[in-house]
Amino acid sequence: MTFDLASYLKERQILTNNYLSMILHCFDQKRELIMAMEHSLLSGGKRLRPILSLAAAEACKENSERIALPACCAIEMIHTYSLIHDDLPAMDNDDLRRGLPTCHKKFSEATAILAGDALLTHAFYILSQPETIFEVYPDSSIRMQLISKISQAAGVMGMVEGQMLDMQSPNFKSGGNLAYLKNMHSLKTGKMITVSIESGALSVGADPDTISRLTVFGDKIGLAFQVVDDILNVEGDPTRMGKSAGSDLLNEKMTFPSLMGMAASKKFAKDLRTEAIESLSLFNEKGIPLRAIADYVINRDH
Amino acid sequence: MTFDLASYLKERQILTNNYLSMILHCFDQKRELIMAMEHSLLSGGKRLRPILSLAAAEACKENSERIALPACCAIEMIHTYSLIHDDLPAMDNDDLRRGLPTCHKKFSEATAILAGDALLTHAFYILSQPETIFEVYPDSSIRMQLISKISQAAGVMGMVEGQMLDMQSPNFKSGGNLAYLKNMHSLKTGKMITVSIESGALSVGADPDTISRLTVFGDKIGLAFQVVDDILNVEGDPTRMGKSAGSDLLNEKMTFPSLMGMAASKKFAKDLRTEAIESLSLFNEKGIPLRAIADYVINRDH
Repeated sequence: MTFDLASYLKERQILTNNYLSMILHCFDQKRELIMAMEHSLLSGGKRLRPILSLAAAEACKENSERIALPACCAIEMIHTYSLIHDDLPAMDNDDLRRGLPTCHKKFSEATAILAGDALLTHAFYILSQPETIFEVYPDSSIRMQLISKISQAAGVMGMVEGQMLDMQSPNFKSGGNLAYLKNMHSLKTGKMITVSIESGALSVGADPDTISRLTVFGDKIGLAFQVVDDILNVEGDPTRMGKSAGSDLLNEKMTFPSLMGMAASKKFAKDLRTEAIESLSLFNEKGIPLRAIADYVINRDH
Repeated sequence: MTFDLASYLKERQILTNNYLSMILHCFDQKRELIMAMEHSLLSGGKRLRPILSLAAAEACKENSERIALPACCAIEMIHTYSLIHDDLPAMDNDDLRRGLPTCHKKFSEATAILAGDALLTHAFYILSQPETIFEVYPDSSIRMQLISKISQAAGVMGMVEGQMLDMQSPNFKSGGNLAYLKNMHSLKTGKMITVSIESGALSVGADPDTISRLTVFGDKIGLAFQVVDDILNVEGDPTRMGKSAGSDLLNEKMTFPSLMGMAASKKFAKDLRTEAIESLSLFNEKGIPLRAIADYVINRDH
């Protein structure tokens, strides 16, 4: 029986979307703040982080994905807040996100700032609840570890600092270097991807050795994801990407191709994929979905 | 022996400031993000919330204020993030805060947004840590309750929604009403003041009845604080206030004096003070500091 990745992804997107909807539907839908949160949270993202989290949970314990949902949803709320704030005029000044107006375009800049703040805060509320809309949830000591690890990946030791480094990054002609680039990506996106996987495993009570193997897998595919992003920005088909290629070069942005060259970047992505797959060797057939997701991340064309 | 409020406040400000410094001094002081967080966090606020939290802890258990420090510091970090975001051009567009340039004026708008995000996230990190820079800390089940209560007071059910209501508030001539005003203040500042007091009591393991009395105290003085703010905006001495009086009237802002009249507002503040003090009746002499703080909040002239 071959593994049907498309159905696998679809099912977990639906599961995540349903629970994210329920989280927001606890509140009055006519409130402007709730509408702004919903606009960004339920606008049909890929749900890569929740899918990785659920797949990690299932790799550690069969049919146990539901217990990983609170952390999944919290992580997706944090990811969404970061997109809302990154899109603001003072940051990337983007008008469109996932084909829709960005939060500050649809509402206002002030509302977008507050919607981001509210999503971030509510993520920790969800993680702290022993009884919520979720049918099952990890016990209190596991939830405390989740809060510790997720806050670490999201804040001053992770994503927020990564965004600072991105804003301050030198261009590839003057001062750009591979160590800076790798560190920036590790902080900006890598740590949240790794903590997604770690949270899935933690939620089902996986042992430390299993978790550390999954952490290696997360670090490798998180970085591979960025390398492929940079490659697609040069070689991607604009009609598939939904945006024009070549913008990085135009902006003299420090990227893997600009620093390493295209051939070496492609080899780097392939090597990271091999290392990621190797870290899953102990999972046997339970690792099939994670392996398929790794291939999907690296072979995607948009 | 009379109670020396000035020394009491000063000692607890120093205790709070020392621990807030230690939290930030775990990081490289040359990082722009850390400098921006420090600029706003260590710029000498009144530390009303931490002081209330420490006083509540001491009212429940003698010489136990140190165990209340993790929550104290987390709450002050959240309060500071809210000031940084409120000061942004898209919100109140303020250039000065506590006599210093606001975070976005001193650094940049993008850095200010990120410094706020980082302070909010790190507050939950601090609350989740079993071992930190703190000498003592509440046990895990209490820390989980703190995270739940503080995230509730700060987010979509509290402060962030209060800020939305403030932005959307009708002026006092058209549509302003007392229910809206009270609800807005309860959400915007009341819930964080109440949770400060609750957190102090929770941290030292106070029983539910004691906590609920302190919650009443918090609700009353939180509201009284706002009523007095509104009164001072009309009658305050600009040299003591550090800002010109009368701005609310000029902006047709909905306030207690504009809706109730000045005499009724003063009576309202006095009644709230009486009710606050009554809620402390069981604390005897252990309630002296909290009573003195209530009087200070209501009788202040700036």
